Amino acid sequence: MERILAHYRVLCRADEAADMARAIAWEQTVEVVEAAVPWPDVRERMVGRLEELHHDGQAAHIYLSFNPELAVERIAPLFTLAYGNASLYPNVRLMGFRVPDRLASAIGGPRFGLDGIREATGIFDRPLLCTAIKPRGAPLEHLTDIAYRYALGGGDIIKDDQNLAETDTATFRRRVTAIDQALQKAADITGRRCLYFPHIYGAGSELHEQLECLTDLAIRGALFCPLNLGMATCKQAARDYNLIAMYHPAFAGAFTQPRDHGIAADVLYGTFYRLAGADISVFLGPGGRISLSAEENTAIHHKLIQPMGLRPDDAIKPTLPCPAGGKTLEQIPALIKLHGKDCLLLVGGALLTLDPDISIGTRRYIDTIQRHVPIEKNNQYFLKR
Amino acid sequence: MERILAHYRVLCRADEAADMARAIAWEQTVEVVEAAVPWPDVRERMVGRLEELHHDGQAAHIYLSFNPELAVERIAPLFTLAYGNASLYPNVRLMGFRVPDRLASAIGGPRFGLDGIREATGIFDRPLLCTAIKPRGAPLEHLTDIAYRYALGGGDIIKDDQNLAETDTATFRRRVTAIDQALQKAADITGRRCLYFPHIYGAGSELHEQLECLTDLAIRGALFCPLNLGMATCKQAARDYNLIAMYHPAFAGAFTQPRDHGIAADVLYGTFYRLAGADISVFLGPGGRISLSAEENTAIHHKLIQPMGLRPDDAIKPTLPCPAGGKTLEQIPALIKLHGKDCLLLVGGALLTLDPDISIGTRRYIDTIQRHVPIEKNNQYFLKR
Repeated sequence: MERILAHYRVLCRADEAADMARAIAWEQTVEVVEAAVPWPDVRERMVGRLEELHHDGQAAHIYLSFNPELAVERIAPLFTLAYGNASLYPNVRLMGFRVPDRLASAIGGPRFGLDGIREATGIFDRPLLCTAIKPRGAPLEHLTDIAYRYALGGGDIIKDDQNLAETDTATFRRRVTAIDQALQKAADITGRRCLYFPHIYGAGSELHEQLECLTDLAIRGALFCPLNLGMATCKQAARDYNLIAMYHPAFAGAFTQPRDHGIAADVLYGTFYRLAGADISVFLGPGGRISLSAEENTAIHHKLIQPMGLRPDDAIKPTLPCPAGGKTLEQIPALIKLHGKDCLLLVGGALLTLDPDISIGTRRYIDTIQRHVPIEKNNQYFLKR
Repeated sequence: MERILAHYRVLCRADEAADMARAIAWEQTVEVVEAAVPWPDVRERMVGRLEELHHDGQAAHIYLSFNPELAVERIAPLFTLAYGNASLYPNVRLMGFRVPDRLASAIGGPRFGLDGIREATGIFDRPLLCTAIKPRGAPLEHLTDIAYRYALGGGDIIKDDQNLAETDTATFRRRVTAIDQALQKAADITGRRCLYFPHIYGAGSELHEQLECLTDLAIRGALFCPLNLGMATCKQAARDYNLIAMYHPAFAGAFTQPRDHGIAADVLYGTFYRLAGADISVFLGPGGRISLSAEENTAIHHKLIQPMGLRPDDAIKPTLPCPAGGKTLEQIPALIKLHGKDCLLLVGGALLTLDPDISIGTRRYIDTIQRHVPIEKNNQYFLKR
């Protein structure tokens, strides 16, 4: 049976490495002292197994394997297995995580993925553009005007700012309906529909009311903050309501920063967001005040796009990478160079303020994207898929 | 109007402090460049307001106030407002967070709280004892035997290990039912019912199936991992099914460690867990391999127990503090000295392995607790409530 593989880096002395490996292997599985597991077969089956251990002078590199049964084919228990209690240890970072094909298939990953979004937008040959509806507190006419002009200018996807939220579903519905209508008004002119991802933040019956509102309006996608709402909840909501799921990075910095604790950016935004059903994974592009490095961007991109499994029939769909974080028009060529054709460029304030008429600012972003479409790089990904 | 108050500590130079304050104030609210907010009244109403700023030589201390409207009376948007995007900045730690009484009341906090748990256990005059059912993978007869003997020995509360999970609801129901029956068998002998908190980990319809199983068995409480399942989801589930909610620390270390990023332990386990409806907040006691300091324990305890609001009628209920993390019998007196009478002592492996007969081990823990009940210290809390 193939096993789950996890690589932890732990800042500790070389003579502490074996103890740390043992602590994590037991903590993440049976979470108890050895004396409380008297059955050799339970130890053998359940406790994490040390596959490799070395120390690089600064940190121990601990490679554990886990029985995939522990994840019961679900994202929440898998996430707990990977890092739930390990987070409580000082200086432990999850650097790599691989699940067997069969487990990945059972969990499922994205429903639409990169190709589904290509189909939904009708754009197959260039990076896609996204902006955000903001700011919170602005008059509704302003928010609908952003949507209208952005769509008129040729924008592909528009999402709610994750700060948009209401005290009741009726107000939520009124706002989402108005924005949807503005996009339809633009589509009547352009002949092409800009996709809209409203922010979903409810729990219990309110969650379902918000999702039903999207169904009523035939809205195709939704924006979720999976590290606040729960990855499993977001995944299930998208599945139950047949939505293209865009996952926001809110709270991701708690995991990815600083770099000697938490979870490596490519594992969180790549492996976990993808397994948790992200059709679009939003993360920080390089070169801003809040940003991830170019290397981290490349690593995330690979985790989102490249085959996850070894057997083609078990492979889960690729997720569309979405670098974000205040990107100016001048940064677009470098972003495309880094991410290739298959990405969604999320630009908020820089796009909205480029020109007094947002449709003109949008047009300039789309033109820039079209002028910088890479041909070569992307074929690699298609070949690998 | 009273405002939300947040204290961020940012490792930066003194001449960077004002920029960081401005960045967080805008990022957490309107998340856009100033040019995109042309309305003075929206800036005034929505953007975080700098109340105080100083630099201690190492770090900036930024005190911001926020319009409570931004939280729309819900825990998920409140959490996003407090730290969602701020997490993405390097070296920003949320050190303090206070919400106005009216907002706290609207969000609601615990349904049962400390007093409700006292009533449910029938124990009013001493710290309570809890253990965990483990290890994952052990034969069901072993798990039921732990429950039976622990209850026979006088244990107050027993919870599932957060690693316990099943691939289908029927198996979940079978296990939970068997454990519940074992506890009933013990209650038939002792005349007193040990409370059981099964681990709830489902999403969508499976979440409801698991919760319905608890309703069918008249089980009073449940264990949730709010940082995996989502605080709002856990809060709503406990409310919809009238359950005493125990919140587990899985993933909390991603936020609390290391201490120059993330969220201070008392704010996360105290303020946020309580607002998110924790009747019991599980955190790490001092003195173990994975632990929080005595100072952090005291700070968490205060945040859980002391009045949250200023006006008595708006006050939300106190949460029962639950220090955990492999506590031996010898550590119990110090723990009680630290936490007083109003706490739940969670002891797993150390209790289960103290004596071959778990009922004897449990008895010894209860005896130790009874011998160390503090009288004085606790009255402080009662007076303050």
